Amino acid sequence: MTSPLIVDVPDSSDFSFHNIPFGVVSIENSSQPFPASAIGEFVINLRELAVAGLFDRPLLRDIAPSVFSATTLTLFLQLGRPSWREARQTIQTLLLKSHPSPLRDDPNFRSSVLIPIYSIQHHLPVRISNYTDFYASKEHATNVGAMFRGKDNALMPNWVHIPVGYHGRASSVVISGTPITRPSGLRLDPVTKAPVFGKCQKLDFELEMGFVVGVGNELGKPINIKNADDHIFGVVLLNDWSARDIQQFEYVPLGPFLGKNFGTSISPWIVTLDALEPFRVAQPTQEPTPAEYLQGGSKDAYDINLTVQLKASTTTTPQTISQSNLKYMYWTFNQQLAHHTVNGCNMQTGDLCGTGTISGPTPDSLGSLLEMTQNGTQPITVDAVSRTFIEDGDEVILRGWCESEESAGEKIRVGFGEVTGIIRPARS
Amino acid sequence: MTSPLIVDVPDSSDFSFHNIPFGVVSIENSSQPFPASAIGEFVINLRELAVAGLFDRPLLRDIAPSVFSATTLTLFLQLGRPSWREARQTIQTLLLKSHPSPLRDDPNFRSSVLIPIYSIQHHLPVRISNYTDFYASKEHATNVGAMFRGKDNALMPNWVHIPVGYHGRASSVVISGTPITRPSGLRLDPVTKAPVFGKCQKLDFELEMGFVVGVGNELGKPINIKNADDHIFGVVLLNDWSARDIQQFEYVPLGPFLGKNFGTSISPWIVTLDALEPFRVAQPTQEPTPAEYLQGGSKDAYDINLTVQLKASTTTTPQTISQSNLKYMYWTFNQQLAHHTVNGCNMQTGDLCGTGTISGPTPDSLGSLLEMTQNGTQPITVDAVSRTFIEDGDEVILRGWCESEESAGEKIRVGFGEVTGIIRPARS
Repeated sequence: MTSPLIVDVPDSSDFSFHNIPFGVVSIENSSQPFPASAIGEFVINLRELAVAGLFDRPLLRDIAPSVFSATTLTLFLQLGRPSWREARQTIQTLLLKSHPSPLRDDPNFRSSVLIPIYSIQHHLPVRISNYTDFYASKEHATNVGAMFRGKDNALMPNWVHIPVGYHGRASSVVISGTPITRPSGLRLDPVTKAPVFGKCQKLDFELEMGFVVGVGNELGKPINIKNADDHIFGVVLLNDWSARDIQQFEYVPLGPFLGKNFGTSISPWIVTLDALEPFRVAQPTQEPTPAEYLQGGSKDAYDINLTVQLKASTTTTPQTISQSNLKYMYWTFNQQLAHHTVNGCNMQTGDLCGTGTISGPTPDSLGSLLEMTQNGTQPITVDAVSRTFIEDGDEVILRGWCESEESAGEKIRVGFGEVTGIIRPARS
Repeated sequence: MTSPLIVDVPDSSDFSFHNIPFGVVSIENSSQPFPASAIGEFVINLRELAVAGLFDRPLLRDIAPSVFSATTLTLFLQLGRPSWREARQTIQTLLLKSHPSPLRDDPNFRSSVLIPIYSIQHHLPVRISNYTDFYASKEHATNVGAMFRGKDNALMPNWVHIPVGYHGRASSVVISGTPITRPSGLRLDPVTKAPVFGKCQKLDFELEMGFVVGVGNELGKPINIKNADDHIFGVVLLNDWSARDIQQFEYVPLGPFLGKNFGTSISPWIVTLDALEPFRVAQPTQEPTPAEYLQGGSKDAYDINLTVQLKASTTTTPQTISQSNLKYMYWTFNQQLAHHTVNGCNMQTGDLCGTGTISGPTPDSLGSLLEMTQNGTQPITVDAVSRTFIEDGDEVILRGWCESEESAGEKIRVGFGEVTGIIRPARS
C-alpha cells in the first residue's frame, strides 16, 4: 500500500501518524529550544509551523505563533484539551499527501520543519514545579512490603483504600540521556549494623510511567474523577532511580527522601491521552470498592507494553531484563489525580505524577532490581555478567509502546520511545 | 535620644534599622507587585529606589533597575550573599538622616518609596519550586512518636544520626492571610475503625520556621556545610497546617501526603542571615557526634522567640497558647542543607525548607495542638472556649522576633512580623 503521508514512517516506529507526541528540542549548536512533535524519524518544528500560520483552526489560529514560540510547552498545556486535540489533528492533516500546504509543496520550508531526529537534543518539555510519586502497583507494593516487613504485613491496611503516594523532588527530574551520579549518604553497615557514610551500594531503577498535568485546579477545589481526563495532558516513561540502602535507613517515619531525590529520568515525548484512547482497557477489579470520589469509568487503564533493558559498560548490547505492562497497575491515573486533589491540594500545569514501580504478576515482569534479586540476595545474569544492583557505567533503558491488532488492514502502534540513563561513579 | 533615621521606628517594631527584610508587595487597586523592604510602619519600594539609581554600590549599580523591576525576588536571590549584603547596607544608609539623598530630601520621591504598611498587600516573595519539611525538633519528634508508637519507640533509630525530612508540596505554599479550607479525605472512623470519607476532624497547626535558598547547586554536587551560609538567603515563619486524622491513615509507609498538602502558610518578609547574625547561639549538644558532612560551626542556631496565638471566631482577642524558641531545634539550618544535598540533590533559588514543628522542653512551649491536647484527649481553654483541634473560623497567628540585651544604650530587635490564617469550612 502506498503511504498516504508526506514522510515515510517505518511500521516499527513509535512515532506513527496515530501518535503525534509533544516535546521540546533544540538543534545541535543552536541554543534556543522549541516545541516539537515527532513523525517516524523526524521531529516536527511546531514553532515554524505556527509562525507560517499553519495552525489555522479556530482555537489556535490567533495564538499559535506565541504559544509555540515559547521554550517549553507550558503555555500550550494551559490551553486545555480541545486545543491539544486541535493541534494534534492539525499536525496530522499537514502530514497527509492529500492536503496541499507549504509543508507538502515547499522543499525549503519542509526542511526547516522536518528535522532528522538524530540531529536534535531533547529538553524537559515543561517546567516541573511539583512531582508526586504514587505506589499504585499491587504486585510491587506486595513484593517490597514482604521483603521489608514480612509476608503478613506486606500490604499496609490503607493500600486497598487509597492510591498511596508521596511528594518527590521536582528539581532533580531530568530528561532522558542525562547521566546520573551514584549518590552517597548514611546507610547501615551490613556487618556492624551501625550507620556509616559512603557511596550507595544498592543502586536501583524503578520502571514507572507518569502523567503530566495540563490544566490545574484552584487551591481548595478538588478535581472530580469524572473530569480527570480533561486535566491530564499526556504520559511519559519514568525511571525513579533509587538508593535502596540510603532509603532503607532514612524512610521511617516520613518516607523516602535522599534515597530518591538524586535523580528521576523521564522520556522526552509526552504522548497525549487522545493518542492513547484506542488502548484503554478495564482496570483490575478493585475489592473493596473504593470511596465514591475514587469511582471513575470502567476502562480507565491503558494497555502499554513496557520493557527494561540493562547495558553493562563491558558490553555493547543492551539485554532485556523485564517485560511488564501498565495495565497491571491497580490504581488508575484518574484515581491518582482525584485522590491527590480531594483535600483541595492544587495541581499546576506541568506537574508530574509517577505511577510507582509497575510490576506484573510473573517473575519476568518485575519493575526493579530490588524485586528481581530479592534485595540483592539472588543475582541476575546480564550478558554473562552477574548483577545484584546497578554498577558504575551501567545504562538502564526503559521502553513503552501500545499496539492494536490489525483491523481493516491496519495495525496501530503508538510508542513512547525510551528513557535512558547511565550511572557515573560517586564523587570521591 | 533623637532618632538618626528619616522615619520614626517604634521600639517594639519588628522592622528595625537592623532588620531590613525582603518581600514582594502591591498597593491596593494596583496590580503589579514589586520587591520591597520594611522599616517601622512603612514598606520601602525597592523598584523606585533602583530606577532612581540609588543602589549605587559596585555589585548592584548596573543591574539593580532590572533586578528590582521583577515581580519576585528570584533574580535578586540568584546574585548571592555579597549582593544581598550590599543591598541591605545601601538601604540602611539611605535611611540615615546624615546621608543626603532624594529619599531624605525630595518629599515626592519619598512618598513614592515609603508606603504605609497598612495599605499594601503581600505576595509570595519567590516562586517556590521545591518545598521540603524537616523534623528537626527532638522534643516534637519524641512527643509525637510517643503518642503514635509508644514511649519505647518514640524516637526512631535514624533520628539522632540525620535530620529526617520529607518533600512537601510546593504548589500549596501560600502567603500569610490566605484563608485555608478545611480538607476532606479518608480517615478511620473512631468508633468502627473502618475508613470513612469526610471532613477532617483533627485540624492542627504546626509552629515552624523555614529557610529560603538563595543560591542553589548543580545536580550531583553537594553543598559543603562550611558554605551553607552562602546559599541560604533568609528565614520566614511557617505554619504547616496538618489534618491529623487523614495523615494518620495515609502516612505508612511513604510519609505524609494529603494530611499536609492542602496548605502551608509563610510570613511575607524574608529576614536575611546577616540580620540574624547577632542572634546566633550554640545549638544543642549532639550526641552521638554526627557524620563529618553534618559537622558545622559551634554557633549555628538562632535565638528566635516564637509565639502561637489562637483567635476563636467568637472572640475579638487572640490568646497566646504557646511560647517557644528556634534555639531548641536539634538540627541546624546548615545541617539540613548539607544533608539535603549530600546525595547530589540540587537546590534551586527560592526553594523552601521548613524546620518541622518547633516544640520546647516545657508544656507551654509545644508547637502543635496534637501535642498540647495529647491528640485531642486533653482540651485546652482559649478565651473560655474549649479546643482539642482547630474549629471553623478559628485564626492561628504565629510570631517571631529576636531581641538582644541593651548594650551601649541600644537594644536590638529584629522580627518576622506574623503568619496568620483563618480556617474556612469544608466544601460540602
